[in-house]
Amino acid sequence: MKENTAGSLVLPVAPTRGRLRPLGLDEVRITGGFWARRRHTNESATLGHCRDWMERLGWTGNFRAAAAGRIHRDRRGREFADSELYKLLEAMAWQAGTAGTLDTDIAALTEAVAPAQEPDGYLNTAFGHPGQQPRYSDLEWGHELYCHGFLIQAGVAQARARGEGELTKIARRAADHVCATFGRGGIEGVCGHPEIETALVELARLTGEQRYLDQAALFVDRRGHGTLADSEFGRVYYQDDMPVRRATVLRGHAVRALYLAAGAVDVAVETGDDDLLDAVVRQWEATVARRTYLTGGMGSHHRDESFGDDFVLPPDRAYSETCAGVASVMLSWRLLLATGEPRFADLAERTLFNVIATSPAEDGRAFFYANTLHRRHRGAVPAVDAVSPRAESSLRAPWFAVSCCPTNVARTLALLPAYLATADDHGVQLHQYADAEIATLLEGGQGVALRVRTDYPSGGSVTVRIDRSSSNRPWTVALRVPAWTAGATAWLVDPDGTRRTVAPGMTEVTRSFRPGDQIRLELPVRPRWIRADPRADAVRGTVAVQRGPLVYCAESVDLPDGQDVDVIRVDPSIAPEDGPDGTVVTAGQITAYDVQRDETWPYRPLDVPAAPPSADRTGIVLVPYHSWANRGPSTVRVWLPAVEPDRPAPPDSTPTGR
Amino acid sequence: MKENTAGSLVLPVAPTRGRLRPLGLDEVRITGGFWARRRHTNESATLGHCRDWMERLGWTGNFRAAAAGRIHRDRRGREFADSELYKLLEAMAWQAGTAGTLDTDIAALTEAVAPAQEPDGYLNTAFGHPGQQPRYSDLEWGHELYCHGFLIQAGVAQARARGEGELTKIARRAADHVCATFGRGGIEGVCGHPEIETALVELARLTGEQRYLDQAALFVDRRGHGTLADSEFGRVYYQDDMPVRRATVLRGHAVRALYLAAGAVDVAVETGDDDLLDAVVRQWEATVARRTYLTGGMGSHHRDESFGDDFVLPPDRAYSETCAGVASVMLSWRLLLATGEPRFADLAERTLFNVIATSPAEDGRAFFYANTLHRRHRGAVPAVDAVSPRAESSLRAPWFAVSCCPTNVARTLALLPAYLATADDHGVQLHQYADAEIATLLEGGQGVALRVRTDYPSGGSVTVRIDRSSSNRPWTVALRVPAWTAGATAWLVDPDGTRRTVAPGMTEVTRSFRPGDQIRLELPVRPRWIRADPRADAVRGTVAVQRGPLVYCAESVDLPDGQDVDVIRVDPSIAPEDGPDGTVVTAGQITAYDVQRDETWPYRPLDVPAAPPSADRTGIVLVPYHSWANRGPSTVRVWLPAVEPDRPAPPDSTPTGR
Repeated sequence: MKENTAGSLVLPVAPTRGRLRPLGLDEVRITGGFWARRRHTNESATLGHCRDWMERLGWTGNFRAAAAGRIHRDRRGREFADSELYKLLEAMAWQAGTAGTLDTDIAALTEAVAPAQEPDGYLNTAFGHPGQQPRYSDLEWGHELYCHGFLIQAGVAQARARGEGELTKIARRAADHVCATFGRGGIEGVCGHPEIETALVELARLTGEQRYLDQAALFVDRRGHGTLADSEFGRVYYQDDMPVRRATVLRGHAVRALYLAAGAVDVAVETGDDDLLDAVVRQWEATVARRTYLTGGMGSHHRDESFGDDFVLPPDRAYSETCAGVASVMLSWRLLLATGEPRFADLAERTLFNVIATSPAEDGRAFFYANTLHRRHRGAVPAVDAVSPRAESSLRAPWFAVSCCPTNVARTLALLPAYLATADDHGVQLHQYADAEIATLLEGGQGVALRVRTDYPSGGSVTVRIDRSSSNRPWTVALRVPAWTAGATAWLVDPDGTRRTVAPGMTEVTRSFRPGDQIRLELPVRPRWIRADPRADAVRGTVAVQRGPLVYCAESVDLPDGQDVDVIRVDPSIAPEDGPDGTVVTAGQITAYDVQRDETWPYRPLDVPAAPPSADRTGIVLVPYHSWANRGPSTVRVWLPAVEPDRPAPPDSTPTGR
Repeated sequence: MKENTAGSLVLPVAPTRGRLRPLGLDEVRITGGFWARRRHTNESATLGHCRDWMERLGWTGNFRAAAAGRIHRDRRGREFADSELYKLLEAMAWQAGTAGTLDTDIAALTEAVAPAQEPDGYLNTAFGHPGQQPRYSDLEWGHELYCHGFLIQAGVAQARARGEGELTKIARRAADHVCATFGRGGIEGVCGHPEIETALVELARLTGEQRYLDQAALFVDRRGHGTLADSEFGRVYYQDDMPVRRATVLRGHAVRALYLAAGAVDVAVETGDDDLLDAVVRQWEATVARRTYLTGGMGSHHRDESFGDDFVLPPDRAYSETCAGVASVMLSWRLLLATGEPRFADLAERTLFNVIATSPAEDGRAFFYANTLHRRHRGAVPAVDAVSPRAESSLRAPWFAVSCCPTNVARTLALLPAYLATADDHGVQLHQYADAEIATLLEGGQGVALRVRTDYPSGGSVTVRIDRSSSNRPWTVALRVPAWTAGATAWLVDPDGTRRTVAPGMTEVTRSFRPGDQIRLELPVRPRWIRADPRADAVRGTVAVQRGPLVYCAESVDLPDGQDVDVIRVDPSIAPEDGPDGTVVTAGQITAYDVQRDETWPYRPLDVPAAPPSADRTGIVLVPYHSWANRGPSTVRVWLPAVEPDRPAPPDSTPTGR
């Protein structure tokens, strides 16, 4: 790892050291395509949607009520409702940094928040006021440090994107309060929900103040020593079961585990604690190898929103919380900057296209909280004006009682350009593909600019055109060849027209570039059958389809006669093919189950032959998973049962009925 | 349905009408074998174990504290802790009815409870006292009517088993209070947890008081009209989503759904409401056909302890709560009495041997709360002196914070003889097989007695010997030929030695029996492979073994070198065979997974060939599921992956690596 020399200041994550240097939102612009459309929706619809809901539900009013001394009576929403306002402020700051029109909203919301801050910097509307529980009386469930963390991140975002302002000052006062209260000699505790760790490190990076970093390191070190009370879900729920550096895999509540891991990486990078960094890398490896859905989604269980044991990855009621996707990308990004290894960008890409892009509706005004891989009942359309249970609705809902996901999606889309590319001493690395313009200063002040044009992810052609190279010194453009190309052939075409096959990983072109030089990467985007490790019990005997980075799914609205997706069987011996409008068509059959003539008991001796249900061979239409549930109530499945291969004759066949 | 003429009074369930008449605990005795051993353990260990835990945790003391006016300060345990004492009292009453030694304990516990009853009959230590929430201020979660229900059942049990006493009087006063408070013109509500319905009907049966039945009918009718507040889990959680008679399947919290259905059957039978009875039968059919585990277990989800959608039956973290098993047997028994159909006894048998028998440890001092069909981690041995989380321990635990299951097992084992046999105008029906002595009076006062001898469930030979037949009038002995015999051959040997094959269902021998006459039923107990409906996604590609009524499982303690059950593959083309000591041995293989050399990502394109892990063919030892986890920490699985049959070659095979 080396020191990062100063580059852009408009950085969501700005480590002082690392293998790669992040580029700022003033250095990378997304100019078109898949993510530009989503960022446009985010700016034009989602941000206002979130602001209006929080105003309407009284979550914004909580701050006014706290300032007016009537919060014990009037408080609305769950204990962590404050944090949603902060996440929205962060989203607005990053979006304003690239779009510049949101300053008025930021100022108005900041004005609502500010009077609620206590003289000592404490800011929380759920605790500590007359008639409420005392401050920090419920570290397990109170979320006070969690809320302070998001406040700090919003303050950092404002400082970096728009220049230090009132929100930054509020954030610094809050951070000072946290350090004074939880520093050495203070409360020997941690928050039930990690988040403050990564926030304090980023504030240390912004301000250069060592004590914020020290406090973050203290929180990371303190965790795992049982300072939190045991709960029905065990201390593992909030990762207080063992110290971070001793753990071998992520476990417990997925969002908590991932936020904590992100904060641990931040601490490790800033303190040069390679043991800690290695520990998190090992946890990431084990988690990705055995506890991650095909979509990149993490967290298997609804109860306690937790990771499952190894290979417990049921598509039915996969929890795969949107916020766990956000947190996973946060973690992968930090590990990518620290190590430069493309595997982290591979997982981020998968998660962005199949979790983050899945959560918001096309109009940006409804969201999935959980992103299941198999839904068996259509369910009703959630009301547009009502709060929904967080993980039960079968369609995207406008808002939730626990509404962490909408604002988390909003801030992720707002800062997304920062995830596209990095720089190092040798040049620029492209990690994610989108129409974009990138300009930065390389080592020694060499100014470079490049323009990316691509039809990704529906197409696999990526053209990088050099727009500027301020000197003749050779430099390198590195491009990630995604891991999903394994077993197929990817090509790179040099500026001089030379064409070569490239393997998964980073591929590089180094030369004395001239404006107009073009590099072309041809990625083999075609639908392919995917199968899971045989230990992933819940998907045995099924296959899925992936096309480029996109996971596909069968959705009931594409089946005749209102049939459900559970009637589908596919034939993995025939390759899936591209269909019209971004669909994929596979060979398969529709099984005629007759619910009225169901068996009375769903288990049958193997030695009693059953007449298989009749089945018609047909093409099965699949759509990108992120696009599902935009055409009314439907059922969905990602893992598709294969038509059964011929079995050996069962033993002792006796044709005597059931 | 016909009127039940008076028979025994020692009846857990005593409908005034029905196709079959139950026999009392003074008419059926279990004299040996599988259930006799368990009932002995129940009497000699479990009852005292439960009593001691409740004394130690202060749950018994709650009643004393309520009487002394200090309950608001001193109350211990969850809001439904009172009910555990009542369930224990019920267990003691039934057990005393057959064993006769527990009267002192019953008197002592009753003496503890009695002073806490309010002058108007209300009895609950969690509500209504100074400093507590008001009575019935939280019908959704407060469990006050639920507790009253179990109190009433205990009072009924005492009256029936030992004669009316103090406990019965307390119960009647409580029931009068419930009717006064929730009757017409009173609170228009229902309890979040059904239970009171079946209790009130049984009290009506005991006392002949119509108003108890009316109140039960009112509770059943009121449910489903949204009188309970919506919750995070929806109103479906407490079956308040639709009226009982409109529902088509059991749904929501499994124990609640099953208790409610049992109460609805009771009401339907007593009021002649055939529509309601038919509705519950249909719900039972749909639930058994699509929402029940191979073990008979019900309830798929840990979160909200609820039924899954149709065919959502993951063996991983199957919830299959012990109390849902108890409640399912309660429901099946009531439906069997009402209709006479053997399918209800089939399910009860499956549930008794594979859920009820699984919960208690061999020593009767530890219990499973959830009965998963697949556990992947060994976990630690729960401390013998600590309360455990209810559904997380990998071994049986002595007691739980929510400890409904131990006392529910205790009362079920105590009243078990009542589930064995019934009578009707024509004779006696044997529904469950155990060494037993049965004596009753048939229509017209004909006294009959029979003795059952069997090695069931390890063997399939059942001998019924007539001990008495007080007249020459012909009568009928009917024997259930279990549904699990389908596809194999069961034999019946008449008293005169005639041997005939019999099909699943009831088989009858009618004659003018003489003492010494013997009937022999030969059931084909041998291990058989079982497969699931193809829509049960989570077990696709696996098979299970059933032998007679017993489901078998692989347990890691039977594998070499401390290996985990997930390395097992079995070969369904070779029939499983009996092994020593009640085990079954199947052909299979042990797969050599090397966790250290894991793939980095568990999904792989089908067109990229993978070298299969090496595997050694070997015999796999299986044990009865009910017996697992009695030999130290282990992992378990019921559904065993089949060795993969040869697949067609994958499309576009490109041997270019991953």
